[in-house]
Amino acid sequence: MELDKPTIDDNICDIDRIERYVRNNLGYDEIDYTVELLRKVPEVIRESDFNVTITYVKKKNKITILNIEPGNNENQLYGVAIDIGTTSVVVCLVDLYSKEIIDKASSGNAQIKYGADVIHRIIYSTKKNGLKHLRDAVIDETINPLLESIYIKNNIDKDNVVSLVIAGNTTMSSLFLGVHTDYLRQEPFIPPFLKSPKLIGKDIGLNVNDSAYIFLAPSVASYVGGDITAGVLSAGIWTSEENILFIDLGTNGEIVFGNKDYMMSCACSAGPAFEGGGISCGMRASNGAIEKVSIDKETLYPKLSIIGDDKPIGICGSGIIDLICQMLLSGVVDRRGKINKDLNNDRIRFNEHEIGEYVLAFKEEYGIENDITVTEVDIDNFIRAKGAIYSGAATLIESLGMDFSAIDKVYIAGGIGNNLNIENSILIGLLPDIEREKFAYIGNSSLVGSYLALVSKDAKMKLQDIGNEMTYVELSVYPTYMDEFISACFLPHTNIEQFPTVKELLGDKVKI
Amino acid sequence: MELDKPTIDDNICDIDRIERYVRNNLGYDEIDYTVELLRKVPEVIRESDFNVTITYVKKKNKITILNIEPGNNENQLYGVAIDIGTTSVVVCLVDLYSKEIIDKASSGNAQIKYGADVIHRIIYSTKKNGLKHLRDAVIDETINPLLESIYIKNNIDKDNVVSLVIAGNTTMSSLFLGVHTDYLRQEPFIPPFLKSPKLIGKDIGLNVNDSAYIFLAPSVASYVGGDITAGVLSAGIWTSEENILFIDLGTNGEIVFGNKDYMMSCACSAGPAFEGGGISCGMRASNGAIEKVSIDKETLYPKLSIIGDDKPIGICGSGIIDLICQMLLSGVVDRRGKINKDLNNDRIRFNEHEIGEYVLAFKEEYGIENDITVTEVDIDNFIRAKGAIYSGAATLIESLGMDFSAIDKVYIAGGIGNNLNIENSILIGLLPDIEREKFAYIGNSSLVGSYLALVSKDAKMKLQDIGNEMTYVELSVYPTYMDEFISACFLPHTNIEQFPTVKELLGDKVKI
Repeated sequence: MELDKPTIDDNICDIDRIERYVRNNLGYDEIDYTVELLRKVPEVIRESDFNVTITYVKKKNKITILNIEPGNNENQLYGVAIDIGTTSVVVCLVDLYSKEIIDKASSGNAQIKYGADVIHRIIYSTKKNGLKHLRDAVIDETINPLLESIYIKNNIDKDNVVSLVIAGNTTMSSLFLGVHTDYLRQEPFIPPFLKSPKLIGKDIGLNVNDSAYIFLAPSVASYVGGDITAGVLSAGIWTSEENILFIDLGTNGEIVFGNKDYMMSCACSAGPAFEGGGISCGMRASNGAIEKVSIDKETLYPKLSIIGDDKPIGICGSGIIDLICQMLLSGVVDRRGKINKDLNNDRIRFNEHEIGEYVLAFKEEYGIENDITVTEVDIDNFIRAKGAIYSGAATLIESLGMDFSAIDKVYIAGGIGNNLNIENSILIGLLPDIEREKFAYIGNSSLVGSYLALVSKDAKMKLQDIGNEMTYVELSVYPTYMDEFISACFLPHTNIEQFPTVKELLGDKVKI
Repeated sequence: MELDKPTIDDNICDIDRIERYVRNNLGYDEIDYTVELLRKVPEVIRESDFNVTITYVKKKNKITILNIEPGNNENQLYGVAIDIGTTSVVVCLVDLYSKEIIDKASSGNAQIKYGADVIHRIIYSTKKNGLKHLRDAVIDETINPLLESIYIKNNIDKDNVVSLVIAGNTTMSSLFLGVHTDYLRQEPFIPPFLKSPKLIGKDIGLNVNDSAYIFLAPSVASYVGGDITAGVLSAGIWTSEENILFIDLGTNGEIVFGNKDYMMSCACSAGPAFEGGGISCGMRASNGAIEKVSIDKETLYPKLSIIGDDKPIGICGSGIIDLICQMLLSGVVDRRGKINKDLNNDRIRFNEHEIGEYVLAFKEEYGIENDITVTEVDIDNFIRAKGAIYSGAATLIESLGMDFSAIDKVYIAGGIGNNLNIENSILIGLLPDIEREKFAYIGNSSLVGSYLALVSKDAKMKLQDIGNEMTYVELSVYPTYMDEFISACFLPHTNIEQFPTVKELLGDKVKI
């Protein structure tokens, strides 16, 4: 804008001068702005001798001014897609013109110090100042530093960051807004909100333009959150003719089944096993994690693949799946997950309570501090987690009067990582025994969905629609779910007929 | 609202439960709310077993929820009218149903420590953190404590205070919002804004409901602010068939002339003389101020009327008007305001620079620390102030091709106080020599106008219209103004024919 310079005869006020320019040159009737923007106006327009650049969004005959800067700048405008995971947070800076991803950064969610999973954080939130601590942890200690690091690296002014799409599970979304979450975990599990109110940067204290639009991916229920609606957006279920089974293997497990005509969702109490939680030597899929395992059927010697090719520190989700599968096929465990006491091998040992464990890595082998082992308790925990997912999927599809044969595609999303072995996942009964080419790992679909909603208005509206249209099935009240779950707490399942591949591979080891 | 209690089968989220109630029972389609309100919802609805009271404003098919409380409360809702004067701030709590004034409180504007008048505060605002200090002074140190004292006294919850109308001069309005003011005092005197952006409680940090609507009376120019538009609203100029001259004798002097068809305004550089400023023994119209004076023509002994009937401390605006008038009529001063050196009276004395003074109160007379005197310099300052007002009014009316005979009513507003003697004000040439019954003192018209806009939507719209419709005349560029001003810097004026009453009273003392 080259504004007319004020004189005694043309002495309208600064903001009216801008409005007059907008009316005469851009054709809008009215301007809207915050008091924070107004505070910048007098200095900025004079600093540049009344030659300024404004950033605005239009809405009918009106514009909202987001930023004003001195001089004639061909500004880039940026948006940010954020996935707030219970464990990790990923921030993705996007050029809003080209839709290109400029940079990405991630870190642990600083809320972890108040609890490893959502339940512990909800409990912490009820303590004095708990909600505030949790909000500060995710905003001031996690997201804002990530943004700051990206801004510095890419030489970006936060005032040019004008749009955000944020996805997280229902608890993460609530804590992000500082809203009470205690009723999420108490029957009948009522979330405070599903769609967020209108929000701008200054409402939340995010390190972005004060007027930046903030859109939270809508939740569907207490345990099907914005990460799932965003994931479903990116997986394209809403436009698919085929039946898609979407499974998010993150800190919890959420499942969606449907196509363009309907979408059903449920949450499984899988816990954090797929991210290495609840396993004595478990860890996230980061450097030092055993991510792949194969066991020699004769010697029971394990061949390990370690992230970063370094000394092993622990085992991640994909490693555990491989390990349990290999232990089953080599007869180390039976179909109940119990270790065979008749095997005489130095990698198999039992403690005084007769609880068995398998040694993945002796400390002497790798020069590490302790042996890395997987115990029967670990296996049991993992079996319960995989059983929750399998039975959840089975119940969800059954609630529609269908079975797994109706599935055209299975998309796996979430923190379990790129090295998920589909074959092994089927063999242990995590995934159904159907055609292998139907499976695909789609990564962090929550972040991808947020990105899509950030760069496309249609996608954002679709995301809102997905939140409204998805049906939630509460598994805990579904009559057959508990039976399904118990049946699925075996390797691969009590009913081996559901897993013909496994039946054939196991041969005489098939009996429970 | 008696909300349905959530069950596993009726498990919609808290805020949707409220929206459903609103839709089914109140007939609105949508609800709007801030994140601050959302934070209260889960606890409040459960605390009261889903029996809650909401406070809302409607707008077409939508409501904005301002507050939610447990139980079934027949709440009062309150509004606040505020007059932010350069010197004093008045806060007025109003019951929005009955429109009754519940309570009033006032105090000095804490900004005074940064400068007595707007010019000094504007200069201070350009220092580091100056703007912030000034904003904190008026909000945190002045208005919020006044509100708090009223809430405690009347047992009111700040969340029930949902609407505010605030009037102040252009500088006060800008500093209230923390907006840069330096260009108000630099030619061509451009204000940053005249109408304020949309504001709610939390934008400003006022001690009211976070969602409370805040309306700032619009300004007209750098030195005709919201106090004047609010004053004009209360004076009813906009609806009058008669020609009204409105004079605000506050820290500065602003004048409006007009009727329902047009309104012209101007600002006079009168300074703070009418509030006792720039006068050696001057003070505000508070306890100890000499507010009325008459002088015995023979003895030159002054009869004083003192506010609070206490020992005199100084003299306020109305007292100075009386005093100068009485000095003129008794021949103590001539029409230039110079003290007659030929008078032999112990109340008249001259210093080594030959500057005369008149003793209003000897310290021995009242047992006070120093004599209270008025010097020729004080008189000169006051004459310049009254000259600015008179010549401003004359120029404004002349700009319409009229003269004082066109005036049907003169309304005097502002801090000069109830005891303004109209007759004396005319005799010294502050006010025009027209029929006395045309004059009325209307008090704090800024506060009255704010109150009207608070309790009536029509009045609020009218206030906005007044801001848009009033014409501003910049006196400093008006060709005849300087001559008018110089002519008015006499008692009462160089052209005595404009003051027939004075001419007759003065008799042979008429010559300059």
